[in-house]
Amino acid sequence: MTRPNTPILDRIHVPSDMKGLSNSELSALADEVRSEVVQAVSTTGGHLGSSLGVVELTVALHAVFDTPRDKLIWDVGHQCYPHKVLTARRERMSTLRQEGGLSGFTKRAESEFDPFGAAHSSTSISAALGFTVARDMGLPTGDAVAIIGDGSISAGMAYEALNNAGSEGRRMFVILNDNEMSIAPPVGAMSKYLSGLYASPLGELQTMAEGFESALPGPLRDHARRARQLVTGVTGTGGTMFEDLGFQYIGPVDGHNMEQLLSVLRAARTRATGPVLIHCCTVKGKGYAPAELSADKYHGVAKFDVATGVQAKSRPNAPSYTSVFGTALSKLAENDSNIVGITAAMPSGTGMDIFAKQFPKRMFDVGIAEQHGVTFAAGMAAGGLKPFCAIYSSFLQRGYDQIVHDVALQNLPVRFAIDRAGLVGADGPTHAGAFDIGYLAALPNMTVMAASDEAELVHMVATAAAHDSGPIAFRYPRGSGTGVEMPEIGDVLEIGKGRIVRQGADVAILSFGAHLSESLKAADLMQQQGITATVADARFAKPLDHALIRKLVKTHKALITIEQGSQGGFGAMVLHYLAGEGLLDGNLAIRTMTLPDRFIDQAAPDAMYAEAGLTATDIAATALQALGVDAQKLGVSGVPL
Amino acid sequence: MTRPNTPILDRIHVPSDMKGLSNSELSALADEVRSEVVQAVSTTGGHLGSSLGVVELTVALHAVFDTPRDKLIWDVGHQCYPHKVLTARRERMSTLRQEGGLSGFTKRAESEFDPFGAAHSSTSISAALGFTVARDMGLPTGDAVAIIGDGSISAGMAYEALNNAGSEGRRMFVILNDNEMSIAPPVGAMSKYLSGLYASPLGELQTMAEGFESALPGPLRDHARRARQLVTGVTGTGGTMFEDLGFQYIGPVDGHNMEQLLSVLRAARTRATGPVLIHCCTVKGKGYAPAELSADKYHGVAKFDVATGVQAKSRPNAPSYTSVFGTALSKLAENDSNIVGITAAMPSGTGMDIFAKQFPKRMFDVGIAEQHGVTFAAGMAAGGLKPFCAIYSSFLQRGYDQIVHDVALQNLPVRFAIDRAGLVGADGPTHAGAFDIGYLAALPNMTVMAASDEAELVHMVATAAAHDSGPIAFRYPRGSGTGVEMPEIGDVLEIGKGRIVRQGADVAILSFGAHLSESLKAADLMQQQGITATVADARFAKPLDHALIRKLVKTHKALITIEQGSQGGFGAMVLHYLAGEGLLDGNLAIRTMTLPDRFIDQAAPDAMYAEAGLTATDIAATALQALGVDAQKLGVSGVPL
Repeated sequence: MTRPNTPILDRIHVPSDMKGLSNSELSALADEVRSEVVQAVSTTGGHLGSSLGVVELTVALHAVFDTPRDKLIWDVGHQCYPHKVLTARRERMSTLRQEGGLSGFTKRAESEFDPFGAAHSSTSISAALGFTVARDMGLPTGDAVAIIGDGSISAGMAYEALNNAGSEGRRMFVILNDNEMSIAPPVGAMSKYLSGLYASPLGELQTMAEGFESALPGPLRDHARRARQLVTGVTGTGGTMFEDLGFQYIGPVDGHNMEQLLSVLRAARTRATGPVLIHCCTVKGKGYAPAELSADKYHGVAKFDVATGVQAKSRPNAPSYTSVFGTALSKLAENDSNIVGITAAMPSGTGMDIFAKQFPKRMFDVGIAEQHGVTFAAGMAAGGLKPFCAIYSSFLQRGYDQIVHDVALQNLPVRFAIDRAGLVGADGPTHAGAFDIGYLAALPNMTVMAASDEAELVHMVATAAAHDSGPIAFRYPRGSGTGVEMPEIGDVLEIGKGRIVRQGADVAILSFGAHLSESLKAADLMQQQGITATVADARFAKPLDHALIRKLVKTHKALITIEQGSQGGFGAMVLHYLAGEGLLDGNLAIRTMTLPDRFIDQAAPDAMYAEAGLTATDIAATALQALGVDAQKLGVSGVPL
Repeated sequence: MTRPNTPILDRIHVPSDMKGLSNSELSALADEVRSEVVQAVSTTGGHLGSSLGVVELTVALHAVFDTPRDKLIWDVGHQCYPHKVLTARRERMSTLRQEGGLSGFTKRAESEFDPFGAAHSSTSISAALGFTVARDMGLPTGDAVAIIGDGSISAGMAYEALNNAGSEGRRMFVILNDNEMSIAPPVGAMSKYLSGLYASPLGELQTMAEGFESALPGPLRDHARRARQLVTGVTGTGGTMFEDLGFQYIGPVDGHNMEQLLSVLRAARTRATGPVLIHCCTVKGKGYAPAELSADKYHGVAKFDVATGVQAKSRPNAPSYTSVFGTALSKLAENDSNIVGITAAMPSGTGMDIFAKQFPKRMFDVGIAEQHGVTFAAGMAAGGLKPFCAIYSSFLQRGYDQIVHDVALQNLPVRFAIDRAGLVGADGPTHAGAFDIGYLAALPNMTVMAASDEAELVHMVATAAAHDSGPIAFRYPRGSGTGVEMPEIGDVLEIGKGRIVRQGADVAILSFGAHLSESLKAADLMQQQGITATVADARFAKPLDHALIRKLVKTHKALITIEQGSQGGFGAMVLHYLAGEGLLDGNLAIRTMTLPDRFIDQAAPDAMYAEAGLTATDIAATALQALGVDAQKLGVSGVPL
């Protein structure tokens, strides 16, 4: 494998180095950046398709705007690899998404060229408006440019921001990067609407807001004038939805035609007095055949061979929690026609694609719309269906008010399947599922479970399906299960009952969720020193198994709780219970092990949990410290949190 | 005061009783319902203006649709008084918003005619789609009709639902109740757009989706045909935004013209095959002169005199927390031009109107758009401004992911002014600020304060303004302060430091927020029995005052924490700290007093806190129980939670 030849890129360290380049040199630079990105991602894995789609756009934006004074705000941020290559991070591209390396997203702490980090979608227009107000109030910042995909602009938050920005009328720029894809093919009426806007052949600029054409070069200018008259007509009512919302609309622009991009961006930058939306059409995976030909356009890839596009395969010993969920739900649905599934633009990420394959009419992909998704599910439950709402822990934060107000308060039996609970690896802190235990367990009527392994997950899917008296949530981690034997059919668990997995005498470890295996390892470690631990799987953070907890504290000298989540969650609920019962009044040593009070950067999940102080050794050390035993006996250096 | 004469209404117990009525009788019924609502609200107070605006619409909907089989879903639900009068709740209207009485909103537990309760905005279309899917899957439910105001449809969640419903293409109905008002005059581009849709004189139906006219009576049909041709023209591009999103659009309809309403609703019900949006124009406060003439159209009123419209005034002894916040912020802003304010459609509810009066260009009302509002503030902070984002505790739940992902993770100094913390009285459980302590204190980088009185609030505003190193939140209750002497200027508090307010020896009460006064009363109660309590004001739930907590537990036999919030909040943070330090290992009695694990129905705030078990007596009883003293000594019957 040879490194690509990159004579122009070799001269570009920061965007200001591009200032003298001609249009054709910028075009050549884009080709070099594309090769560089393919090369880099082939060694690291990552979000390749979205980055390849915006190579020309990235070069053009940096050529036309004055970054970092002007603020480029990449929505989601997973398409930022070309941007990173051009902003003093080229040398570190091989560290992408690795421990200690570059983030896979934009990140303020990483570069002054990343004015507003992201990873969740649809935040860019709001942030751009914030910078714009700051500029208008005299602070030293230039133009703000939000670059947002068609999937992301369909979310309610983006609409709220357009609505506000259109009304504020301030000079700012939104680039709508329309590739007819989010991760899965996009859904919803907005997506169809956008397709309608570029029904005509690409390459022809069809609409250019009045007053902008004169800043265009000759032929393009004349064409734009004719096109605008044609499209908007004489009725004056033919504006796009964006014009209805107060934006000037330019587009569609061919996002891979450097000449056109540069002309339009320069004209817009010269003439804009208010908010401008530039509708830019791109192809996800552009310029790298294996990516262009793939169904999901190489949205997220493993390491791959550049010549063939073949991705490295990991050979897991156990099925992923995600597929276990999808399969278990499908099996139950065979005998219960009221089971329906909801996903917010993540059919394959949540395993809902498995369910949809068998029950296409019973799976609802609402797009990036968690707020709606949750209340839609609540409406379904009120109508007598059994909705399973499958949303990642961190994305479910988007639907929090709806969980409180529409689901919990009305005590409606919505089932929340919460994937990506705990630390998630390469996607880093933005995707960590750290807070759901606490934010759900605080809600009246809510039942909260966590699966300690993939067999438990099957039981919990069955338990949720059977639980018709109120809302119920079950969380499980990203990645592969532990390889346990799988039940043919899930058992319906008794609500609020945990189980003792291993009986000891000295210390009790009460685990909630997938850290059960680490807890058992910790028990092994202690056993080697003659200290025996009881290990229990709480299964429920709400309702708590009071009898189990009472038994554990009455029969052990110390109790350690452990969870893959922040403070205020399972451990807190146990403490509240013990305090209320007066069970803390006497001599009981208790420790709650949670994620620490800081965000943890990307690394392998095990490394992240080590950084979090949640290894088996940490658990054993904490238990020994609680027992008043010298942890050095174990050769343990880790200090409990 | 005489009761209005209501011969038709007297025959209507449930909507099916309306079936035989002629159009003109229905019109007369509407007049009677209006009088009834004015009469009832004059004795209870409540959301009068919105209810008066939809009297004809309510009568028409119940006359045309088959409730409760068909599902009327009132967005927000504060306009439901006419609906309650017509659905077997007329006799209880005098109990509206009172303890043990009717809710001021729709509520599933209250009536089968309330299929989906509300109080927060913009949930109705999502819920209606849920019912629609349930019907299409064979469950016994009829048509779903969402009735949503122009303020609420501007929120992102409503857009998400329109986008999904338009794409699903199922038969359902959205009534857009356009009164050019939310609570404050509406803001944003969408609002302006809607105004444009009815620029022509009212009373003329301008657009009727093709295929519907034939179901209209003669003259209206011919007019609708002509109007549709005129508006949509021959270009075919002149559809409304709703048509762009896949809805058939009918409107604008005069929402006070019963003939027109009935014709259009009947036509729509007969002919609809997909999603239909009926744009209905109404006047908030319609038909009651004092309401029509008022600036906020009598949005929320106290009891009033029907003849004059004069509202009963309460004479508080102390200023409201809301106004204290607005005034304190304005004072600080005089000397700091970077201070800006953000509200989500609640300028007067949050005190931002006070700030806006003095600094109109520095206050930003983003509309009902908490998601955008939070990230907009984050963008402002990234741009160097000092944003104060003032959102009620329960509404801030709508911006939770943005607080996590855009504010806390990026450690941006957004200041959250959290009004309506704790129980709020007549608005009931939907508006309770129960969860914010926990959902904020769990976040790395976040500082969380609560004001124990209105003077403390002034200090906290100053502290937040001075805190530039990360996000900070301060919460305070609804209603009047305690009447303490007010500081001229707020002190900048030391971050993470509480204060001892009263020194005792036996038990320590550590209060977070406005229950400090109850804690002091509890200390008085105990003092009468010879037991002395130290009372401390924690000020911070995060970071905790470790030194203070350590001192309290080392020098007292028991520690009681108290907060106006749910489990998993302040008390949980104290417990986590004590557990981690091994301070629970010995003989310390500790109790955490929080809101109970259930939603509490409306009543006076004091009565709600009594129901919650958080009176001074409850605190004293809890403290005595922790000390092992017989609570009966106090004559205390309350049992601690």
